[in-house]
Amino acid sequence: MSDRYASFANSGPGRMLVKRLGLPNPPVLRRFRPGDPLVTGPVLVGAAPGGRLEGPVRKMLTVAEVPMDGGPPWSALVFDASGVQDAAALHPLYEFFHGNAKALARNGRVIVLGTPPAACASPREATAQRALEGLTRSIGKEFGRGSTAQLIYVAPGAEEFTDSAMRFLLSSRSAYVSGQVIRIGPVTSSPLTDWEHPLEGKVALVTGAAQGIGAAIARVLARDGARVVALDVPAAGEALARVANEIGGTALQLDLTRPDAPSTLAAQLLSRHGKVDVVVHNAGITRDKTIAKMSAEQWDAVVDVNLSSQERINDALIPLLPEGGRIIAVSSTSGIAGNRGQTNYATSKAGVIGLVQSMAPILASQGVTINAVAPGFIETRMTARMPLATREVGRRMNSLSQGGLPVDVAETIAWLAAPGSSGITGNVIRVCGQMWLGA
Amino acid sequence: MSDRYASFANSGPGRMLVKRLGLPNPPVLRRFRPGDPLVTGPVLVGAAPGGRLEGPVRKMLTVAEVPMDGGPPWSALVFDASGVQDAAALHPLYEFFHGNAKALARNGRVIVLGTPPAACASPREATAQRALEGLTRSIGKEFGRGSTAQLIYVAPGAEEFTDSAMRFLLSSRSAYVSGQVIRIGPVTSSPLTDWEHPLEGKVALVTGAAQGIGAAIARVLARDGARVVALDVPAAGEALARVANEIGGTALQLDLTRPDAPSTLAAQLLSRHGKVDVVVHNAGITRDKTIAKMSAEQWDAVVDVNLSSQERINDALIPLLPEGGRIIAVSSTSGIAGNRGQTNYATSKAGVIGLVQSMAPILASQGVTINAVAPGFIETRMTARMPLATREVGRRMNSLSQGGLPVDVAETIAWLAAPGSSGITGNVIRVCGQMWLGA
Repeated sequence: MSDRYASFANSGPGRMLVKRLGLPNPPVLRRFRPGDPLVTGPVLVGAAPGGRLEGPVRKMLTVAEVPMDGGPPWSALVFDASGVQDAAALHPLYEFFHGNAKALARNGRVIVLGTPPAACASPREATAQRALEGLTRSIGKEFGRGSTAQLIYVAPGAEEFTDSAMRFLLSSRSAYVSGQVIRIGPVTSSPLTDWEHPLEGKVALVTGAAQGIGAAIARVLARDGARVVALDVPAAGEALARVANEIGGTALQLDLTRPDAPSTLAAQLLSRHGKVDVVVHNAGITRDKTIAKMSAEQWDAVVDVNLSSQERINDALIPLLPEGGRIIAVSSTSGIAGNRGQTNYATSKAGVIGLVQSMAPILASQGVTINAVAPGFIETRMTARMPLATREVGRRMNSLSQGGLPVDVAETIAWLAAPGSSGITGNVIRVCGQMWLGA
Repeated sequence: MSDRYASFANSGPGRMLVKRLGLPNPPVLRRFRPGDPLVTGPVLVGAAPGGRLEGPVRKMLTVAEVPMDGGPPWSALVFDASGVQDAAALHPLYEFFHGNAKALARNGRVIVLGTPPAACASPREATAQRALEGLTRSIGKEFGRGSTAQLIYVAPGAEEFTDSAMRFLLSSRSAYVSGQVIRIGPVTSSPLTDWEHPLEGKVALVTGAAQGIGAAIARVLARDGARVVALDVPAAGEALARVANEIGGTALQLDLTRPDAPSTLAAQLLSRHGKVDVVVHNAGITRDKTIAKMSAEQWDAVVDVNLSSQERINDALIPLLPEGGRIIAVSSTSGIAGNRGQTNYATSKAGVIGLVQSMAPILASQGVTINAVAPGFIETRMTARMPLATREVGRRMNSLSQGGLPVDVAETIAWLAAPGSSGITGNVIRVCGQMWLGA
C-alpha cells in the first residue's frame, strides 16, 4: 500500500495534483521490522534545572543500550521540562531546540516530558507546563523530514514507569504518531517486560479483524506474542480465516449486534482460551450522508455497531479481565473534530471517547486500563474509494504530508496493550501524522 | 473591512483564486447592531424525554419574547439532550435534526444542551453526553449558509443560569463562533441583567487597545455600558487617544513589561476609577521564525508580553476585583493546534490556556470568573500582511469559509464579561468560524 502510494505521488497526475494544490512532497517514513534496534543513532537528552525525569529517562536509555553521545545527527531530542516552574523558565527549551533543530536526523523524534498541569503545585507552574503543548505541537509542524514530536505528562510518582511510552515514541513503531499529548498516571507497580514479546502468554480479542486496520492489529498483537482471537461477522468468514491462520490465531464468526453476542463471546473466550487479557474494539461501519438525507436505519446502525455494542461487550467481558487487563477502543479524528456527512459516525466515535474517559477511573480499581486510538487518514479500502481530489487533500493535510498505514494504528494499540503501559489509561491517542483537523 | 473582503472575493483575481483552490464562496454573515431583535424569526425547541433544560430554555425564550412557533423557516434549532441516558437514546436528536435541517434559515443557529460528562451518574450517560460533541461539530460543518452550531454542557444546579449563553449564541453577536463546547458550572446566584447595557457601572481595562482586536473590544465594552480604560504602549499613544475619545473612555499609556507596570496600573485604576471590574488581557505580539532561526530575544519577548506580563498584572489586580469580577485573556488557535514558525507564540498562547484553567478554581472562591477566547483567522493589519495565497487559504479553512472581524472577538469577550455569565469560568472559547485546525 505504501509503495503504491509513493508511486502515485510520483506519477504524472499525482505530481500535477500535488503541485496545483501547493502541497509538499511526503518524506519516506521508516517503519519497524522485528530485529530493528530501538533507535538508529544517538539520542540527545536535555533538561531544565530541577527536573525529576531526566534521571529515569537516562536510566531507561542506558538499559536499552541507546547511545547518548557521539552525535550529531541525533536520532532523537529528549527534554525533561518537569523542572520548569514558570513561563520565564521555559527559556532552556528554546535554547535546546534552537541549538539542535538542524542536528536532528531524518525520521527523528522529539519528546518533551513534563508534569500534568492539574498536578502542579502552583498556577505559575501549571501555566508553564500547559505551555509545553504549544511548543511541541509547533515543533511537530515545523521540523519536517519525517520527524515526530510528542509531549508526555508524567504524574508525580510515575517517574519510573515511562519506559513503555519512551520506547514506543523513540522507535519506528510510532512512525505516524505525532503532535500527541500522552498522560502517564500514578502507578503502583508495573511488571517486568519482555520488550521483544511483551504480549507473550496473553489472549487478545480483536473485533473487525478480517481486513484493513483490524487485520493489521491482529498481526501485530500476534507478532508481539499474543494468542489472538480474530472476530468478524459471518459474511467475512473466509477473509477472517485467512488472517487467523496466518498468525496462528483463532477465528470467531459473530455478529456483535445480536442480543446474545456478548454472552456468547464471553462463553467462547472462557471455554476455548480460559481467559481474555486484551480487548480491542475495532469493528466499525460508516453510512455517510448529510443528516437531512440520512435514514433512521443509517443513524441507528452506526451508533449501535460503533458504540452501543462496545458497551454491551464490555459489560460481559470486564468481569473476566484479570489485573493488568486492557481495553482499547478505536475512535476517529472525525469523532474529535466532527465531519460533514458523518453526523452518525462522529457521534459514535465521540461517544467512544466518553466511554473511555468515564470507564477509566472505574476500571483503575481493578488494575485494568482503557484507552482509545483515533486514526486520521489511513490508507484502506475505505479511503481508496474516495474521489481522487478529496483523497489527495485528506492524505496531505498533516505534518507528514501522507496517509498512514493500518500497521501504524496496530503498533499504537500494541503499545497500549503491553504490560509496561500500566500507567496509561483514559488517554485518546491520535494516529494521524498530526493531521491538521481538530477541535 | 467586511465589505473590502467581500469585494475582493468577488473581484477577478479573488474569484480565480477561490476557484483554483476549490474553495467555496463565503456566505454573508449577519452581525449585531444595537436595537436588533434577539432573533430574526421563530425558534424550534426539541427535547429528549426526561431532560431538565427544556423548561428553563422555554422560560428564557418567553421572557425574551422569542416566538417558538409559526415557522419554518426557523431562526434556530434548540435541543435539550440532557435526558439522554445512553447511546440508543440519542435517536431523538437524529429525528429532530433530520426533520428540520432544511427548515433552518440563513445565518441560523443550532444549540444542543446536555450534561457535562464528568457530572453524569453512569458511564452510559457520560458516554452518550460526550457523543453530543461529535454531532454538533458535524452539524457545524454540514449545515452551511452562515449557520453556527454549539454544544452547551449545563452542570446540575445551573439550569436557571443559561440565559447569558443562550442569548449570545442565538444572537448575531456570535456570528463567527461555531463548533464550540461551552460549560456552565454550578452557580449560586446571578444578578439580574440589563441585557441592553449589561456592563453599566463597570470599569473595564483593555490592554493593547490602540488598534485591531483591542480597539474593537474597547468599543463593544463601551457600547455595553462599561467605563473603559484603554491601555497601550506609549508609542501607540495617538491611536490610543483616538479610541478612548471615541468611546468616552480613558487612555492609559504603559509598557506592561516594565517591572513597575503592575503596581502603577493598580494605583492608576484605584486613584482614577476607584475600582476595576473587568480585565481583558489582549496585548500580544508575534515574532515569527522557525525555532532554528529564532533569536533568544524573539523567544523571550513573546513569552514575556503574551504570558508572563498577564501573570504579573493578575497578581496586582486580582486583589482589587470585586465579587462578580471578570478576567478574560486572549489565546489563539495557534496555542491549541501549534503552528509552524510560531513556537514562541504558540507556547505563550497555550500557556494562557493553562493560566485560565489553573486560576479558575482559585478565583471561584472570590466570585470571579476567568476565561480565554481563542481567535482563529481574524481580518486585521497583521493578517493583511500575509502573502496572498497563504492568507486566502487561512481565511477559507473554516465552516464559514471566511475570516472573522475584530468585532467578533470583542462580542465574545463582552458576553463573558457580562454579569449573567457568572456560571462560565475556565472556558476556552474559540472565535474561529469553526476553523478546521485543531488538536
